[in-house]
Amino acid sequence: MPATKAKTATSLVAQKVEQAQQILREVGVDCWIVQFAQETGLHPDPVQNLLIGTDVTWLTAFIIPARGKPTCIVGSLDAEKIRAVGAYPEIIPYVEGIGEPLRAWMAKHDPAAIAITTSTSNHAADGITLGNYRRLQAALKGTPYVKRLRPADDIVFRVRGRKLPEEVARIRHACCLTEELFGEIAARLRPGVTGREISDFAHAWMRERNLEPAWEAESCPCIPIGPRSPVGHVPAGDVPAEPGDLVFCDVGVAYEGYRSDMQRTWYLLKPGETRPPANVQHAWDTLQAAVAAGVKKLKPGAKGWQVDAAARQVIVTGGYAAPTFAFGHHLGANAHDGGVVLGPRWERYGKAPQLPIEVDQVFAVEYGIPTRDPYLGWVSVEDDLRVTADGVEWLATPQREIGLIGMR
Amino acid sequence: MPATKAKTATSLVAQKVEQAQQILREVGVDCWIVQFAQETGLHPDPVQNLLIGTDVTWLTAFIIPARGKPTCIVGSLDAEKIRAVGAYPEIIPYVEGIGEPLRAWMAKHDPAAIAITTSTSNHAADGITLGNYRRLQAALKGTPYVKRLRPADDIVFRVRGRKLPEEVARIRHACCLTEELFGEIAARLRPGVTGREISDFAHAWMRERNLEPAWEAESCPCIPIGPRSPVGHVPAGDVPAEPGDLVFCDVGVAYEGYRSDMQRTWYLLKPGETRPPANVQHAWDTLQAAVAAGVKKLKPGAKGWQVDAAARQVIVTGGYAAPTFAFGHHLGANAHDGGVVLGPRWERYGKAPQLPIEVDQVFAVEYGIPTRDPYLGWVSVEDDLRVTADGVEWLATPQREIGLIGMR
Repeated sequence: MPATKAKTATSLVAQKVEQAQQILREVGVDCWIVQFAQETGLHPDPVQNLLIGTDVTWLTAFIIPARGKPTCIVGSLDAEKIRAVGAYPEIIPYVEGIGEPLRAWMAKHDPAAIAITTSTSNHAADGITLGNYRRLQAALKGTPYVKRLRPADDIVFRVRGRKLPEEVARIRHACCLTEELFGEIAARLRPGVTGREISDFAHAWMRERNLEPAWEAESCPCIPIGPRSPVGHVPAGDVPAEPGDLVFCDVGVAYEGYRSDMQRTWYLLKPGETRPPANVQHAWDTLQAAVAAGVKKLKPGAKGWQVDAAARQVIVTGGYAAPTFAFGHHLGANAHDGGVVLGPRWERYGKAPQLPIEVDQVFAVEYGIPTRDPYLGWVSVEDDLRVTADGVEWLATPQREIGLIGMR
Repeated sequence: MPATKAKTATSLVAQKVEQAQQILREVGVDCWIVQFAQETGLHPDPVQNLLIGTDVTWLTAFIIPARGKPTCIVGSLDAEKIRAVGAYPEIIPYVEGIGEPLRAWMAKHDPAAIAITTSTSNHAADGITLGNYRRLQAALKGTPYVKRLRPADDIVFRVRGRKLPEEVARIRHACCLTEELFGEIAARLRPGVTGREISDFAHAWMRERNLEPAWEAESCPCIPIGPRSPVGHVPAGDVPAEPGDLVFCDVGVAYEGYRSDMQRTWYLLKPGETRPPANVQHAWDTLQAAVAAGVKKLKPGAKGWQVDAAARQVIVTGGYAAPTFAFGHHLGANAHDGGVVLGPRWERYGKAPQLPIEVDQVFAVEYGIPTRDPYLGWVSVEDDLRVTADGVEWLATPQREIGLIGMR
C-alpha cells in the first residue's frame, strides 16, 4: 500500500522477468506464457507475485520471450496498471477479445516452443486453470501454435528456486523480525496464558509493523500448549499453559512479499525445576542431532529425499516414530515455495523429493517429536537457510537449546 | 483473525455447503468435488472463501454429495483446521497419498455424475488447475469414475448467484461503510489534494476499522483527478486537483468476506460557480438516464446483454461513444463475482451476458462518460442492488446528483 513498498516490489518483478529470460535461453525455449488468466484478485496463481506484480480483471496474457520485449495483452482498462508495474515494456490493450491480438503476436514471433505455467508435481508451477487452458487452446485453434505448448515446470523450478540477492535480503529481514517476535512471545509465556492470547498478541504485533502473517492468520502462529492441544496446522486454542508443559510456536511474517517460517520450543518449569525432565531433554537432543544430520547432507547436487532420510534415520534410531511430514521445503514469496521438498518419496510429494538442490535456493528446515513417557507436548524447531556452494548459510540464529520459562 | 469473525464465517460456509447440496439435487448431480487442490494459500481458487473456509497445505479433496455427509480427504496435519471450520462433517486424513482414500470413497458412493469446478465461461467457476485436473484423472485411472467427471458451471452459477440473507446483510453493511467513506473523502477533496493522498487516507480509514479493500489496495480506491489522470484500473497518482476538475472515486470494502463496489463523482467549483458547467451536467444527466434505462430492464428472467443494451443506447443517443465496458456484474465474496455480466455479447465476456437474471442475485451497476468540449474528466457512478421478484432493491442510496465541492 505505501508507495515505497509498491516501488520496490515493482523493480524486483522486473528483475525476475529478466532472470526468466536468461533461463528461457538456458533451457532453449522461445517464449513462456507466464500467466493466461482473468480476475486474478479472486484467483491469483502461484507465479503472480513473482512475475506479474498486479491483479488483472479481464483475460490477460503475460508473455516472456527468450529474446525481445516481455509483452502483455490486456483488457484496455487494465493497461495503466501493467504500465505502472514496469516489467512488461510491450503492452497490447484490447477491447472485445484477446484472440486476435494473441494470434497476431504468435504469427509475428513464430515461437517453436511455448511454455505454459502448468505442472502435475510442483504446486508452485501449477498456474493455468483447466478452463483457461481450454480458452488458450481455443484462441490458438487453427494455428500451428496450439501444438507447440509445453509445461514450464523446469523453468519455474529455476526462476522460483534461484533467489536473487534482493529476495534473500527480504527473507532474511523477515527472519530477523520473527526472532524479535519470538522474544516477545517468550516474555508473555507463563502458566495460565492460552494459545489464543499469544496469537492475538502476535497479530497485533504484526499489524503495528504493517506486516502480514506468512500464511493464513488463523494458524499463523500455530501454538499448541502442552499435551492438551491438538498438533498440526491448527487454529490457536483456549487451553491455558501449566507448569510442566512444552509449548512450541510455528510462525512467520511476510516482509515486502517475502516470508519467514520458523519454530521455537519452550518448556515451562515446575516449581523447583531448573531444567527440563530427562524425557524432554532426550527428545530435544534427538531432534537437534536429526537436524544436524539433515543439514550436513544439504548441498548443491544432493536430492531432497537424501536430506530427509539422513534426518529421519536419527529420529527413528532415537526411539521415536518416523515423522509424518517432510524435513524441509523452499521458502520465498510463499511459505511453501514449491520446487525441492526435503521429504520422503511419498505419493503426496510427487517428484519434488527427487529434484536437485542448487545454490541460492532458500529452505525452511523443520522437524518435531512428540515427547514420550509421559507425553508433555512436542519439541519442534524450524530455521531458514540459503544453500551456498558447499553448504548452508543460516538466515537467523537457529535454536540450539530449549527455551526455559520460569527462570526469570 | 478475531474469534467472532472466524465463527460467523464458519457458519456461513456450512450454510453455503447445505445450499450446494440442495442445488445438486435440483440439477440431478450425485456429487461435486468442489476443490481438488493443494497449497491454497499460494493458489486459492474462486470457490474457496464460499465453500471451503480455510487454506490447505497438501492435496485435498472437498466433496459435497447431493445426499449424505460433505467429506474432506486431507493431509493429516491439516485435519484439525477442517474440523474447526465445521462444514465437512466427514474428515478422512491421509499420510502418504490421496489416491487410495479417494478411490475408496468413490467405490463406496458410486456416483453416476461427478461435478468438478471448471468453466470456460465463468471465471468464478473456473477452479481446478490443469495440473490438478491431470492428478485427479491419474488418481481415478482404471476406475469408472474418471469418465463421470463433468463441469460444475451450472452448479456454481446457482450457488454463487443465489445470495443467502446473511450474504446480502454483509454486502449491505459493506455498502453502508462505503457511503461513510465517500463522505470522508468528499470532506477532504479540495484544490491541491492528490489521488495518492486520498488513497492513503482511505487505506488508513479501512485499517482503523479492520476492513480490507474490496480489491487490490493499489487501485482501491481508484481516484482519477480531472482531465490530467489516466482512467481505468489505475493506481492513485500525484496529480493535484484544481478548480474546474471532475473527480470520481471507485472503491469498495470487504466486510466479513463480502464486498461493496461503488463510485461517486464530484465537481470542484471554480470561484463564482454555483453549479457544474453545462457540458458536465449534460454528461451527468445522460449517465443517470442510462442507469435508469438499464435498471428498468433488470428483472428475473431478463438476459444480461439486454440490460446493458438499454443503458448503452442512452449513452450513444446522448452523443457519446459507447462504453468499452459492461454495465454491471455480480458482487459478493468477490467484487467481480462471476455469473451474469450485464454487458455486450463480446468475446471477452463469453457466455456471461446470456445467462438469466434470478431473484437474490446481487449486482453492481456502473457506467461512466468522459465529458467533452472541453474534457474535464469523467462522470461515473456505481451502486449495488439485489434483484427482487419484480425489480431491484438498492443496498445503499444511489448517487443522483453530482457532488459539488467548494460550496462549504
